[in-house]
Amino acid sequence: MVTVIFEPDGRRAKAQARESLLSIAQRVGISVRSECGGKGTCGKCRLQVSPKSAVIPPTPSEQKHFTREEVQMGYRLACQTLVTGNSDVQVVVPPESRITKRRLQIEGIANPVALRPTVHSVLLSVPPVDPAHPVADDERLIEELRKHHRGKMGSLTVPLFIQRKIPEMIRIALGQVTVTLWNKRTILDVTAGDSRDDLYGVALDIGTSKLVASLHSLVTGRSLAVAGLENPQIRHGEDIMSRLSFAAADPASRAVLQNLVVDSVNLLLSRLAKEASISLERVYELVVVGNTVMTGLFLGLNTKYLGYGPFTAPARGPFDVSSHTLNLSLPPQANVHVLPCIAGYVGADALADILATRLHRRRRISLLIDIGTNSEVVLGNRDKLTACSCAAGPAFEGAQIEHGMKAVTGAIERVTIQPDSLEVKVETVDNQPPIGICGSGVVDTVAQLAEVGLITPQGRFKEHSTPKLVHDQRGKRFVLVEGKPEKNQPAITISEQDISQLLLAKAAIQTGYKLVLDHHQLSPTDLDKVYIAGAFGTYLNPASARRLGLIPPVPSNRVTFVGNAALAGARLALLSRTHRSQAARLAKTIHFLDLARHPEFNRTYTSSLFLPKEG
Amino acid sequence: MVTVIFEPDGRRAKAQARESLLSIAQRVGISVRSECGGKGTCGKCRLQVSPKSAVIPPTPSEQKHFTREEVQMGYRLACQTLVTGNSDVQVVVPPESRITKRRLQIEGIANPVALRPTVHSVLLSVPPVDPAHPVADDERLIEELRKHHRGKMGSLTVPLFIQRKIPEMIRIALGQVTVTLWNKRTILDVTAGDSRDDLYGVALDIGTSKLVASLHSLVTGRSLAVAGLENPQIRHGEDIMSRLSFAAADPASRAVLQNLVVDSVNLLLSRLAKEASISLERVYELVVVGNTVMTGLFLGLNTKYLGYGPFTAPARGPFDVSSHTLNLSLPPQANVHVLPCIAGYVGADALADILATRLHRRRRISLLIDIGTNSEVVLGNRDKLTACSCAAGPAFEGAQIEHGMKAVTGAIERVTIQPDSLEVKVETVDNQPPIGICGSGVVDTVAQLAEVGLITPQGRFKEHSTPKLVHDQRGKRFVLVEGKPEKNQPAITISEQDISQLLLAKAAIQTGYKLVLDHHQLSPTDLDKVYIAGAFGTYLNPASARRLGLIPPVPSNRVTFVGNAALAGARLALLSRTHRSQAARLAKTIHFLDLARHPEFNRTYTSSLFLPKEG
Repeated sequence: MVTVIFEPDGRRAKAQARESLLSIAQRVGISVRSECGGKGTCGKCRLQVSPKSAVIPPTPSEQKHFTREEVQMGYRLACQTLVTGNSDVQVVVPPESRITKRRLQIEGIANPVALRPTVHSVLLSVPPVDPAHPVADDERLIEELRKHHRGKMGSLTVPLFIQRKIPEMIRIALGQVTVTLWNKRTILDVTAGDSRDDLYGVALDIGTSKLVASLHSLVTGRSLAVAGLENPQIRHGEDIMSRLSFAAADPASRAVLQNLVVDSVNLLLSRLAKEASISLERVYELVVVGNTVMTGLFLGLNTKYLGYGPFTAPARGPFDVSSHTLNLSLPPQANVHVLPCIAGYVGADALADILATRLHRRRRISLLIDIGTNSEVVLGNRDKLTACSCAAGPAFEGAQIEHGMKAVTGAIERVTIQPDSLEVKVETVDNQPPIGICGSGVVDTVAQLAEVGLITPQGRFKEHSTPKLVHDQRGKRFVLVEGKPEKNQPAITISEQDISQLLLAKAAIQTGYKLVLDHHQLSPTDLDKVYIAGAFGTYLNPASARRLGLIPPVPSNRVTFVGNAALAGARLALLSRTHRSQAARLAKTIHFLDLARHPEFNRTYTSSLFLPKEG
Repeated sequence: MVTVIFEPDGRRAKAQARESLLSIAQRVGISVRSECGGKGTCGKCRLQVSPKSAVIPPTPSEQKHFTREEVQMGYRLACQTLVTGNSDVQVVVPPESRITKRRLQIEGIANPVALRPTVHSVLLSVPPVDPAHPVADDERLIEELRKHHRGKMGSLTVPLFIQRKIPEMIRIALGQVTVTLWNKRTILDVTAGDSRDDLYGVALDIGTSKLVASLHSLVTGRSLAVAGLENPQIRHGEDIMSRLSFAAADPASRAVLQNLVVDSVNLLLSRLAKEASISLERVYELVVVGNTVMTGLFLGLNTKYLGYGPFTAPARGPFDVSSHTLNLSLPPQANVHVLPCIAGYVGADALADILATRLHRRRRISLLIDIGTNSEVVLGNRDKLTACSCAAGPAFEGAQIEHGMKAVTGAIERVTIQPDSLEVKVETVDNQPPIGICGSGVVDTVAQLAEVGLITPQGRFKEHSTPKLVHDQRGKRFVLVEGKPEKNQPAITISEQDISQLLLAKAAIQTGYKLVLDHHQLSPTDLDKVYIAGAFGTYLNPASARRLGLIPPVPSNRVTFVGNAALAGARLALLSRTHRSQAARLAKTIHFLDLARHPEFNRTYTSSLFLPKEG
């Protein structure tokens, strides 16, 4: 056993020979980026190690990611580097390798909604036993419940957990009990006294990168608290495919991912309760949306075959599951409602987007683009809706971009390039010194490079004499921020390779909206509204997005950024049975356009790899 | 820490100062009788201890149970005797203090039944995903299921446990799966390949003293195995009231009793599966009967208020609970059906008795007496049934009788006394040397004593010169088996006190059948059939029972011993939905006669304390 010290945290860990630095770091709670899930391909888990003899020599995959100088300085990839066990080791985790607190796009659009929750509470007065007619405890309660509803109740389910509580509860407050019901047919709880006003529900969006939840009174409908958290499954891969492959290994790995998300949900729930000063004991419904992989892992479904074509969901849903089945810190019989998915890669989150933007209610045609690691496109109106999934990849999250990073402190998020001087102005998240560039910064950069005429429609640099354009052994690159060799800070640049990655990602989305428009025999001019959903979208400069072709060429006043529309849709399904049953119907009726099998896919995708001509 | 050695077993245990010998014995698996649950009142946990200094001095309650000689010889009550911790101690556990393997009355009457189980299996062929229409895994399965039932299916529940299995199961045997359904509306399991013929169910009677279960094929209806086991809750009191008081202390104590019975059920299940060479993985239903306390503890219900008047059940039932909720070793979604109770002390076992004896189907009047620690009496026909509960106490189980014991090896179960010589002939269980007398032996003895004119109708010994009748400081007693002082074997006797205990118990039952007959305005001559149910009943000599008034004066050919009718009724409810729904209806329609509140109770009970005049 040797000691590993992580700096600048000063965190110490005991480790055995042949354990990787990534694994040791994760074990002691040091969050190191790992977009590829530990395969040595993404190059994001850079660390500086000393002494070098305390770890195995660099692997071939590491040699690709580092210069000779960097290797000399002890730079390594955490996932590839195993401790030898010969001596203790000091490890410096640089800021760019950390998963830090990032901006969470929490609020989606707010929709007024007529409150019609599935959960309601009634106050009953259960009489004591009449010795002449000693009716069982549960039957006396149920009789009062039926009287209260004047016979308008069908068959009633009283779960065993509730049966166990009834005898005590009806004897505490002189028989006065609050009975909480789900859909007027299942008793969720029986508590002594009058607590009808304390009745809450939570809407939750489980994103690949983050979890966001909001707490609501089910009596007033009011939003009482909002909280967000990184999805801790990121340790096992930043994108869906890495996690699917991790989960597919065996049921234990699947359980690892399930437990990670369940623990986070419990943490979110406790934060919400604390913020709103309420008890989780009175939160009786949790409405969940997310892509099919995220909701599947949350429910512990077998997601294995979602990783192979034709990418079928294990189950469509909607699901109604008791809280105790998922080990949530809610009352054991609280209902967890997971909205249905539309197809394997068009999940409950896309359905929630539709609910929130009301595409299914409008006469005019709208286009919805939810930009994320996995992006969805939905087109149509109340007569017909078509959805497709676009494998844009994590480029918008900063992955596969040399100096890319998420929208965390120090990330460049806005870029302007002066047409003549080519002077670069950058804005960073939290106005901190720049350490990398996030998705909206990359989109801005490429749009600006096109605008000032520095790149061709194919995304290649034109010949130019500016010193901003450098050419080294890795090819051509544009310098956004000069390096400071004395501080060992490299320059932040955009390479042709980076531009190419961005164009691949935007081509995926562009292909999506082009083909759904074709499918409806419509053109961009037919679009009444274009909704951009997703956290990334919020920071996007619409002019830059349009310049690249990431969104169709429509006037700016038709473009609406709706932020986390998935959470907004979950909230509607929480507060209104009407919306919830609409969602269930929509999941079955929305047409799924399978781009992978579309005869025009290749042609459209290839043409989308270019920058549009206009501008 | 000192060492305690239990002889003749030779079992050693480490113990701390102030632990009781009863607790130490239970800890190491030495089963010591404890009818009163460790209160020092029943006097059954007799042990011989040496050296006496290794334990605390005899308590006042022990001094009542032992003669001075016995105290001198180191006799103690295990529950009262705490080790001092000063020295090791040797403890001899005499045979009469042991809970040994007892006779289990396993089989009830067999009824032919038209097989209509709630569980059935179908074989489906689930097609692979059509890439042109990538339907979710569960929906492809459900579609085939609906096709198979030609649309004659309502809404369907697919529990999460099953959802988690579907993707793998439909891909193993080229899509061929066996789907097991409950009531055509809940999927209990999905397994690969054709296993339709392997479909089983278990009927279970949880008695206060014993558990008995039978395994059945749900395809042929055949009985495949039967097994029985002592109820291990006996450690916490032999009668219902002791256990209720133990359970009422806190939820943890209730959990102790629940876990004991659940562990025993799992043991029974594994024995059944082994005997029939089947897998428990294919046992999809367990139908349970028992008195309200036993079924309540099994389900983990709050039985606290069953211990106080007016003795209301926490819930009536029927209950349908998933196996995993109770930690049973069946498939997680296997259904556990607990038949409803009729009233607080007329449980699902009495209802099952009715199903088995068909009282509710007959035109003519029948009387059913289920004799146990808690006895039930049911009277009537298809037009009206009345049930009552008789607190007969555990006298028929040998408790409260000085030399009483259960019907285990060495118990006297048959007694004849020659009219003139007063010579006594005894028969024992397993024909072993007599060590005590069980319930049927006590009934025989008292009936024979009445027959030969040795006792008055009040149960008092008449003056007689026979040496069999002795008179010591504890009063008069009749010697059944002479003692052997050289072997330290005391005589086995029946005292006036014992006769009085028996008459109290029989008076409870006699009061029951008299008052239900009165309620129906009927007399014994109106009875077409008298059914005697319960293990005790089976060993009962009907002539002796009639002589005492334990059963009404009807000709022998109208008396039928039906043994464990409760199990037979559970089996009917397992094999036939018709019987199960009849049971649910009966539970609500049977009239419950509350003897404790009956205006004639005291008068009838007092008059029943005598032996009937006839004979």
